[in-house]
Amino acid sequence: MKIALAQINPTVGDFQRNTEKICSFIDRAKNQGADLVIFPELAVTGYPPKDFLDIPAFVDENLKYLDKITRSVSGISAIVGFVDRNKRPQGKLVHNAAAFIQDKKIVSVHHKSLLPTYDVFDECRYFEPAHTISPVKFMDYILGISICEDIWNDEEFWTRPLYEVDPIENLISNGANLIINISSSPFAVGKHDKIRLRMLTHDAVKYKVPFIYVNQVGGNDDLVFDGNSTVINAQGVLIAQAAAFEEDLMIVDLENPAVHVSPRSCDPVETIHKALLVGLQDYVKKCGFKKVVIGLSGGIDSAVTAALAVQALGSDNVTGVLMPSQFSSQGSIDDAVKLARNLGIAHKIIPIEDVFGTYQNTLKAEFKGLPFDSTEENLQARIRGNILMALSNKYGYLVLTTGNKSELAVGYCTLYGDMSGGLALISDVPKTMVYELARYINREREIIPQNSIDKPPSAELKPNQFDQDTLPPYDILDGILKAYVEDAKGVDEIIRMGYDEKIVREIIKKVNRNEYKRQQAAPGIKVTSKAFGSGRRMPIAHNFMCE
Amino acid sequence: MKIALAQINPTVGDFQRNTEKICSFIDRAKNQGADLVIFPELAVTGYPPKDFLDIPAFVDENLKYLDKITRSVSGISAIVGFVDRNKRPQGKLVHNAAAFIQDKKIVSVHHKSLLPTYDVFDECRYFEPAHTISPVKFMDYILGISICEDIWNDEEFWTRPLYEVDPIENLISNGANLIINISSSPFAVGKHDKIRLRMLTHDAVKYKVPFIYVNQVGGNDDLVFDGNSTVINAQGVLIAQAAAFEEDLMIVDLENPAVHVSPRSCDPVETIHKALLVGLQDYVKKCGFKKVVIGLSGGIDSAVTAALAVQALGSDNVTGVLMPSQFSSQGSIDDAVKLARNLGIAHKIIPIEDVFGTYQNTLKAEFKGLPFDSTEENLQARIRGNILMALSNKYGYLVLTTGNKSELAVGYCTLYGDMSGGLALISDVPKTMVYELARYINREREIIPQNSIDKPPSAELKPNQFDQDTLPPYDILDGILKAYVEDAKGVDEIIRMGYDEKIVREIIKKVNRNEYKRQQAAPGIKVTSKAFGSGRRMPIAHNFMCE
Repeated sequence: MKIALAQINPTVGDFQRNTEKICSFIDRAKNQGADLVIFPELAVTGYPPKDFLDIPAFVDENLKYLDKITRSVSGISAIVGFVDRNKRPQGKLVHNAAAFIQDKKIVSVHHKSLLPTYDVFDECRYFEPAHTISPVKFMDYILGISICEDIWNDEEFWTRPLYEVDPIENLISNGANLIINISSSPFAVGKHDKIRLRMLTHDAVKYKVPFIYVNQVGGNDDLVFDGNSTVINAQGVLIAQAAAFEEDLMIVDLENPAVHVSPRSCDPVETIHKALLVGLQDYVKKCGFKKVVIGLSGGIDSAVTAALAVQALGSDNVTGVLMPSQFSSQGSIDDAVKLARNLGIAHKIIPIEDVFGTYQNTLKAEFKGLPFDSTEENLQARIRGNILMALSNKYGYLVLTTGNKSELAVGYCTLYGDMSGGLALISDVPKTMVYELARYINREREIIPQNSIDKPPSAELKPNQFDQDTLPPYDILDGILKAYVEDAKGVDEIIRMGYDEKIVREIIKKVNRNEYKRQQAAPGIKVTSKAFGSGRRMPIAHNFMCE
Repeated sequence: MKIALAQINPTVGDFQRNTEKICSFIDRAKNQGADLVIFPELAVTGYPPKDFLDIPAFVDENLKYLDKITRSVSGISAIVGFVDRNKRPQGKLVHNAAAFIQDKKIVSVHHKSLLPTYDVFDECRYFEPAHTISPVKFMDYILGISICEDIWNDEEFWTRPLYEVDPIENLISNGANLIINISSSPFAVGKHDKIRLRMLTHDAVKYKVPFIYVNQVGGNDDLVFDGNSTVINAQGVLIAQAAAFEEDLMIVDLENPAVHVSPRSCDPVETIHKALLVGLQDYVKKCGFKKVVIGLSGGIDSAVTAALAVQALGSDNVTGVLMPSQFSSQGSIDDAVKLARNLGIAHKIIPIEDVFGTYQNTLKAEFKGLPFDSTEENLQARIRGNILMALSNKYGYLVLTTGNKSELAVGYCTLYGDMSGGLALISDVPKTMVYELARYINREREIIPQNSIDKPPSAELKPNQFDQDTLPPYDILDGILKAYVEDAKGVDEIIRMGYDEKIVREIIKKVNRNEYKRQQAAPGIKVTSKAFGSGRRMPIAHNFMCE
């Protein structure tokens, strides 16, 4: 049996184009002799459709387009992810579903049993779980059709399964001898190689059946889907693997796989780099932009952001803006200019001193006798934010903010200042990883000026200011942040890891108190197991570890 | 039996103070001769604790403090909401629970069965549902202890129950003859009188048992809990009702209720007004602020916001700032000054013309030959935002933004401009309701200058600009917005309500395209059945009804 894994990049709610894409992949699969073509979870609507699922007209559109797709399936069979209505008189209104289509008809519909509701996932918010699960016969196989989370609950693989039931076990015990899983499983560093592949292999060996895993690809807001669709045979051998981070149509002859496939390199820096490019490309395109603008400070964060933007969008679509003040060092200006030249991007120099001076003059009577403090520092950052937004408004550029995760965690950033923009590209990248990305970007030649990498980081908002005046060294900060934010460890546990108690308490207090800034932050691209944003929901008004 | 309903206002994660408050209410109830004192859902942690529930150290603290509370209970019994650990080896780590405490011991623990996961609720994200439900004997009664959503699934009351099981039916069929429900049920206009009271009455009559309903009170971020704790007897008669929007300790002798109680007035304008005051008070206090600052434009939105702030915080704690430009009319300046005088608040006048001129000069070469457009309009709004934030930074004021729901819906507001601030007080109040609030505030004397109410609304960012140049009249706009945002109706349905097709499509497109602004908006106080913010989660990059 020849199976086509159609690893597509849909856009949420773009039913017309998603359907055209699905139909074209069906045609291509048929032309290549496939018996069955498989699309990802919610291929018709795009994933995640979020609260559009609460609008009945959205669900109706999805069914109308599924019908169009169904009528185009002949000479091949297809499995397509869509939103099905729940026909019972109680419960949530819809199911997360897979249609199994043959000869222009839906021959069976399969509902998702396990609905992830943690981190960035909200599926219990929308979906009714499957009421029944049944395998379905196709050619020489009995297919167990499952959806994403359905394969993530094996009691042997996980130390603590999240759900009481295991739909895969159920399908197998009802005779399935080939498990198909359609997914929209977002990227996080290490997830594919360290978890997904190991889990699929474990399950194939355990049940002695092949697993076919078809994942969505592409960026949707903060999430990047990495593709990496995979076929594992009944012996647990990886026999086919689709592209990472790109659309792909991969045909696999289950009985005669071509060659043994090695799992691809999953170097953390390389995959984060790739995820950021795809996330940026798709955010820009799916939001209807073409060009971006970035404030260049001469520091490493804006340099890495600009380099990523050029790699994702091309140098013609990136503009760098230097906005020096009286506190900017000549070295920083030189580094920023050099970066722009290395990247081949247009750059503008718009000094902020006059505007800063006029603000100070306007507020002179008001602030008379009061010292220069964070007010004036923030004001400079806000002037720069305003200038970038003015360029955005005038020319239709998307502003990329340049802050990293470490800063955002402790609030070392200015709301409506350097936080102004449509996408916070590296806001889930810890500072220590920003350095690694810079070295990776420079692996063949100097793109990011070495000086931007080597010099001690500074916000340059007052004389002789350095990040480490108010923050611990970044390797210590990032270690504590990972423990608290990603691993949800408490103070005592983190201290037992070897960190200084005073620093730990101070950092956690800063993280907890700066939630108000993060709730007004631009979306970022999730690359770690726990990003700020839709996957981490904290109260602003609270008093846990704040005093 | 004498029962005390302890309607308290906890702060999320403030275990020390929440526990002190609980212990003091226990003492007071005991001193008043109560046999049983009942606290709201998650009284120990405050509600909603959100992702703090994922931090084991937070759950540990809550258990430690529950233990302190338990050891203080003697000579009275108590029911206290807390977070319990799930002892099974799979599933979510915690339960939403009620401890039934007697003689310094927890005699039984009751877990929540129905976990609301829609709108602002995320309970499936954290909690494992109850595995078993049992009533418990106390004095002459068999208590059916339930938690919030557990009472919200009666198949007779609801046309479409959300869940397959009904824990109240279960408790009754197992012998319960008194239903106790501990809640943290947030305010939305009409919810208490039109839904809760009717539902409780319906259920009491249906099962012929009394219902005791104890609700949290106070504001937590975007949510306001309205209290209104209630006792309904077995005949469906309201026999006691605690305060609305205030802490209260209400003692009810179940066998000898004092008098017949009339349901209190639930006038929409009056309750929204009260909810906004409580929401503001608690946000300011629980975030550690005392004073607020508000930009006064002379328009109705900032006038209503300032009047609410004075009523909530006192005139000494409110500062108004006029920031006129060359486009500000003398009438607007006069109206703003008059408002400040009527409210007895300090006001400052900080003109923005110089800063605006310097920005234009700084950008002159860059924007040469290009016409004045929304760039320059936004710039003015952003200068004002920066000035307010400078005052905030210098003096520790919280900035209140003044935008209403209608503007936020269609994006008629400037990101990092008039959207700058810590709390968007009236961002869930449609413009037509803003007018009603203004008239309500003026019910005894003119506080908001009549001219601010009567004049056609204008942003005054360019000459002769009026809201209705680009938006339909507000009654039409608000009608369409309610249909789309609150009632999730599609285009066709809204047109069938009598609205013009072109206007409907244009408005929905604006709502869908402006999600990026709302995702960076300050939190607002939810007063309608569907507020923007945590209860409405939409993708930014999408193409549903955008073209």
